[in-house]
Amino acid sequence: MKNIFGNHITMTLFGESHGPAIGCVLDGLPSGLIIDPTYIQQQLALRQSLKAISTSRREEDQPIFLSGIKDGYSEGTPLAIMIENKQMQAKDYTKYQNLLRPGHADYTGHIRYEGYEDTFGGGHFSGRLTAPIVAGASILRYALEKKKIVIGSHMEELYGIKDKSFTNKNLKKEIQTLNQKEFAVLDDTIGEKMQEAILEARKEGDSLGGILETVIYGLPAGLGEPFFDSLESQLAHALFSIPGVKGVSFGSGFEFAKQKGSQLNDAFEIKQNKIQTKTNHNGGINGGISNGMPIIIHTVIKPTPSIALPQETINIKTKKNTTIAIEGRHDPAIIHRARVVVDNLCAFVIADVLQGQQGYHWWK
Amino acid sequence: MKNIFGNHITMTLFGESHGPAIGCVLDGLPSGLIIDPTYIQQQLALRQSLKAISTSRREEDQPIFLSGIKDGYSEGTPLAIMIENKQMQAKDYTKYQNLLRPGHADYTGHIRYEGYEDTFGGGHFSGRLTAPIVAGASILRYALEKKKIVIGSHMEELYGIKDKSFTNKNLKKEIQTLNQKEFAVLDDTIGEKMQEAILEARKEGDSLGGILETVIYGLPAGLGEPFFDSLESQLAHALFSIPGVKGVSFGSGFEFAKQKGSQLNDAFEIKQNKIQTKTNHNGGINGGISNGMPIIIHTVIKPTPSIALPQETINIKTKKNTTIAIEGRHDPAIIHRARVVVDNLCAFVIADVLQGQQGYHWWK
Amino acid sequence: MKNIFGNHITMTLFGESHGPAIGCVLDGLPSGLIIDPTYIQQQLALRQSLKAISTSRREEDQPIFLSGIKDGYSEGTPLAIMIENKQMQAKDYTKYQNLLRPGHADYTGHIRYEGYEDTFGGGHFSGRLTAPIVAGASILRYALEKKKIVIGSHMEELYGIKDKSFTNKNLKKEIQTLNQKEFAVLDDTIGEKMQEAILEARKEGDSLGGILETVIYGLPAGLGEPFFDSLESQLAHALFSIPGVKGVSFGSGFEFAKQKGSQLNDAFEIKQNKIQTKTNHNGGINGGISNGMPIIIHTVIKPTPSIALPQETINIKTKKNTTIAIEGRHDPAIIHRARVVVDNLCAFVIADVLQGQQGYHWWK
Amino acid sequence: MKNIFGNHITMTLFGESHGPAIGCVLDGLPSGLIIDPTYIQQQLALRQSLKAISTSRREEDQPIFLSGIKDGYSEGTPLAIMIENKQMQAKDYTKYQNLLRPGHADYTGHIRYEGYEDTFGGGHFSGRLTAPIVAGASILRYALEKKKIVIGSHMEELYGIKDKSFTNKNLKKEIQTLNQKEFAVLDDTIGEKMQEAILEARKEGDSLGGILETVIYGLPAGLGEPFFDSLESQLAHALFSIPGVKGVSFGSGFEFAKQKGSQLNDAFEIKQNKIQTKTNHNGGINGGISNGMPIIIHTVIKPTPSIALPQETINIKTKKNTTIAIEGRHDPAIIHRARVVVDNLCAFVIADVLQGQQGYHWWK
Repeated sequence: MKNIFGNHITMTLFGESHGPAIGCVLDGLPSGLIIDPTYIQQQLALRQSLKAISTSRREEDQPIFLSGIKDGYSEGTPLAIMIENKQMQAKDYTKYQNLLRPGHADYTGHIRYEGYEDTFGGGHFSGRLTAPIVAGASILRYALEKKKIVIGSHMEELYGIKDKSFTNKNLKKEIQTLNQKEFAVLDDTIGEKMQEAILEARKEGDSLGGILETVIYGLPAGLGEPFFDSLESQLAHALFSIPGVKGVSFGSGFEFAKQKGSQLNDAFEIKQNKIQTKTNHNGGINGGISNGMPIIIHTVIKPTPSIALPQETINIKTKKNTTIAIEGRHDPAIIHRARVVVDNLCAFVIADVLQGQQGYHWWK
Repeated sequence: MKNIFGNHITMTLFGESHGPAIGCVLDGLPSGLIIDPTYIQQQLALRQSLKAISTSRREEDQPIFLSGIKDGYSEGTPLAIMIENKQMQAKDYTKYQNLLRPGHADYTGHIRYEGYEDTFGGGHFSGRLTAPIVAGASILRYALEKKKIVIGSHMEELYGIKDKSFTNKNLKKEIQTLNQKEFAVLDDTIGEKMQEAILEARKEGDSLGGILETVIYGLPAGLGEPFFDSLESQLAHALFSIPGVKGVSFGSGFEFAKQKGSQLNDAFEIKQNKIQTKTNHNGGINGGISNGMPIIIHTVIKPTPSIALPQETINIKTKKNTTIAIEGRHDPAIIHRARVVVDNLCAFVIADVLQGQQGYHWWK
Repeated sequence: MKNIFGNHITMTLFGESHGPAIGCVLDGLPSGLIIDPTYIQQQLALRQSLKAISTSRREEDQPIFLSGIKDGYSEGTPLAIMIENKQMQAKDYTKYQNLLRPGHADYTGHIRYEGYEDTFGGGHFSGRLTAPIVAGASILRYALEKKKIVIGSHMEELYGIKDKSFTNKNLKKEIQTLNQKEFAVLDDTIGEKMQEAILEARKEGDSLGGILETVIYGLPAGLGEPFFDSLESQLAHALFSIPGVKGVSFGSGFEFAKQKGSQLNDAFEIKQNKIQTKTNHNGGINGGISNGMPIIIHTVIKPTPSIALPQETINIKTKKNTTIAIEGRHDPAIIHRARVVVDNLCAFVIADVLQGQQGYHWWK
Repeated sequence: MKNIFGNHITMTLFGESHGPAIGCVLDGLPSGLIIDPTYIQQQLALRQSLKAISTSRREEDQPIFLSGIKDGYSEGTPLAIMIENKQMQAKDYTKYQNLLRPGHADYTGHIRYEGYEDTFGGGHFSGRLTAPIVAGASILRYALEKKKIVIGSHMEELYGIKDKSFTNKNLKKEIQTLNQKEFAVLDDTIGEKMQEAILEARKEGDSLGGILETVIYGLPAGLGEPFFDSLESQLAHALFSIPGVKGVSFGSGFEFAKQKGSQLNDAFEIKQNKIQTKTNHNGGINGGISNGMPIIIHTVIKPTPSIALPQETINIKTKKNTTIAIEGRHDPAIIHRARVVVDNLCAFVIADVLQGQQGYHWWK
């Protein structure tokens, strides 16, 4: 429902980038979950832009817990998180007032909310809203890690530059190493090239996009539903709500159009008394339900639409064609930040599914 | 919720491929919608396999309306559709009993339902369940067409063979022409090559997948939500519930990882007093909300997992490694059939969003 | 959502009294539940009118299971039930066409569905729709009984005639005895008086209403939610969906307006190492959550609006005042039939809450 | 879902009585609704206890709008309201720690949240949570008043003392007059008697309950649904979420058990070209749908469970029987405060139903 997500655990999102505060409410949480402020803070820090490649302000996001926590544990009643917007000046944007920024939601928001929307410059559409998403969902990611379900993403591609793949020798450890990195690549040499490309784009007043490959490791078989609440449907629903996401695929994804069934069907085998598949083209999901193999997700994130280069656009008031060049601080790429939003939203979906099937004690 | 989809209009799906009947219930429908049995039947016929390329049985799917219709109009109360399974013999599958068919939901269904699932061979996971989806959703597709919102898909790629693109000269007409074709390609010469490839795969006992490009034409700007109910989230949620779908992208999709913001931001312009974008890389959606341009969706559908070639697998009872070769009639490709499921599910989502924003009279 | 009820297990209702069939779909059911056709049939029989006091046709309601059952157990996938309408003639009603039957939904249905509603005479509003509700919900009532949670109702009042109260000496047994009776009273002598009153009303061409007292026995403490999904909210939501229900109260109900806090607060005590309350004015619920005492519910059911006595009304077409006298077979009371609908719907709510808190294995 | 209510417009509630803040988030609001802070403040003031009859602290509840409002209008994006708890000391309650207060949720909350619940003394169960409910819902009540749909309640009974009835000569004006009163009775002389009874109860260390009669005036016919989302179901669901409510009935309510169909069926008539009923025993609802007559609701509210008189109880830690006498400031009755919660929640339900049927412009 609009700004509410989840079937058993729900997250209700609120706030605008230039209002007094943004935040979310988690409802349906089990009581007794550990709330580790250090972990939450670490997740929020990963959402910050890398100093090296961004001129954007690094707001220190400090979550304030309004309810639902006692002595470091969830109470089971609604857990409300608020993050104050310290730099509330919407001034920077006034000069673009009435100019539709290409690739942004200025126009669609204006039509959808019939002129009552928050000032141009993001409002509720802002990527800043992903901060409370991360803060809230990280509580569940933490609980999943205690259950040995670990989630991590690397930038498998940025502006055509491709990272190496997981070796799969010790996938869990590969993910954990990745999760410590500020710039999530498996091969740091490639990471440097990516950063150079981003810096180059910044210099040009341009921006870059990329693809995240996310792995959910340690998930038992049997989670999900056939049809409308397939695991793919639920994960994709969550991921497509992140600003900038334009594609989501599982396992071999769009490669399924290029090979044959005999190459892509994952053969079953018994290995060390465990049923598994020899390959994982299906990305850990058959018929909408997890099969015990790692869940593999690819998420494409578009280049930040805010660029300094002049762009053609219109003035919504005068209804005249004109140009816009978006000055000021903004990121030439957001994929390295989006990665922690993807990881945490995936954790939210998995926890929600687990609770639906196993009840309030799923995390024990 | 599991087998229920939609926020304002809901579809509840039921049935197994070898039970007495499959069907769906539509709740929340406005009263007064035209129910055209010819149109519904035509949609169901497009879901049938092409005789030329398939050995699978062509079941004549005859929808029986149990409730919600009077004198050719929807009553506004639940509309229940039942399609009887005429050939109920599950015999064909008994010889595969306990053998996990690779790429199928035999294993995941077995774990999820703890041994109580319907016999191997599909059950509720069967692609056959898309028949009532098409029957139910086509009522809304018909209503949208009356509002000049037309939806259509072509196979933009099959086993690496690419169809030509929409010319965009008269997109509406291109879609309508496409919707009359049994094998949905823009270039029929390429279509013949695709059919040859499918026949070749059949001969080999193998199967092929592909990508559908779907266009929703005529949608007004302002439909959708920021964040959790973004138009992308809702459409992707629906599409990923179709068996075999492994990826969904919008507009330039995974190409967003290869180009720059300046190349991909869609510049706004005023043309003939209408606000539009010069390009449509964003596939008609900004910030989760339609911008008035055609919605462009790419859906990748995997090769049918049922293949005659021998595959490695295990026997779930003996827990021993073994092989399986799935004989009998099955499709070497389903993408040409899936296309009508995609079109109708998209119609369902759009109608649901319209009703949520405009109320029961959205279709007038 | 309209004709769908439940958060974790959902029931989707469909059908009209004079269409080909009525039915429901249960989604979210755990796999492995016993489906006992005898039990279901017995529940449906209790919904039939007593021959002694009714002239209405006794349709033998035969549930046909379309999906979701194998070898006597639920599969976990949607369970669809259909009950055919054997006597489909809507003829009886044609003479009342355009006449608004007082107390019925003829007028409100006409406005709500803008003239597209099913013919006057009930349609989807018919009490007949409670048959699939009973059939579907009884699967859960059966499962609860295995968990020693028993539910039963007696007619505590009918047209001012009051039944005696539960002795509470062996409440479980009292309920079980009650559940065997066709006419659910604790004191059969009073039951005879009630039946006489009903027969008298029938002779007069009139009808009677009454109050059901329902007990849910054996429920553990801790079920429910504060605020919007309080156990009272969920139970009342379900009960008010039964045609004819005009009031629902818990424990001392409307007596809470007549006594003092010191008389009505239920004092806690430890008895045989068990925490309980000395009295049960709160009807087993504090703060929206079960406290381990029996849940006590009172449901008032209005006299059947169909009466043979002439009533003033209008013709909706001519817009003229006129009179109506509803001839033919109908019940002079429905409370003795409604009792089994109330019991089964309460079972549905309790099972839904249990599944939400404990997951799919709640019934084990 | 737990702490979320509404189908089209949702309210998500959060907070504990002794935490930093309580509040709610409204999602799905149309853009352009007038947000009148004076009106909201006036509604919150009516929720305060009357100085004359209460020793309880009169907290000035100041709503802080965190998002969703611009220039006095709703933006259409989530509207978040926070009310700070100024007197956060939970000290008063420490002496009752481990003692289960009879009639309160101490015990059920303890079992439900397994010891992780907020300290005894209310927490999320507190009646204080009705402040954000009133603040949020009053935005919709205001919008309804602009549409000439007015809602009001009087205390039709308090500890057996009965107020006079509405004269129905000018019902709209009677409601409006009532809505200005701090102590909502139609006959102020009776109101004085009620206040005396409350003062007397306070002196005794006891408390009183009562019944509210609520009228929704000006509602058009055709709102609601048959079965699971009947108007009665939706209103009752909301009302039973208010702490202390133990019964809800419509129209003649429990009187339906005492009279005959011929006395209670509301005859239709045409009067001044308008279809109406001669009587209103059905309380404005037939078959779950409004019939254009005033909606009449009766809500019984129990005496405040907090009383100074000694009560038997147990210590949950020592598991020993003991007594408790709840000292300090508390209300000897809450019904005169609850009235504004009932009115505003009814407004919320009506607005939600209107939006579902008519879309975002229902309020224009």
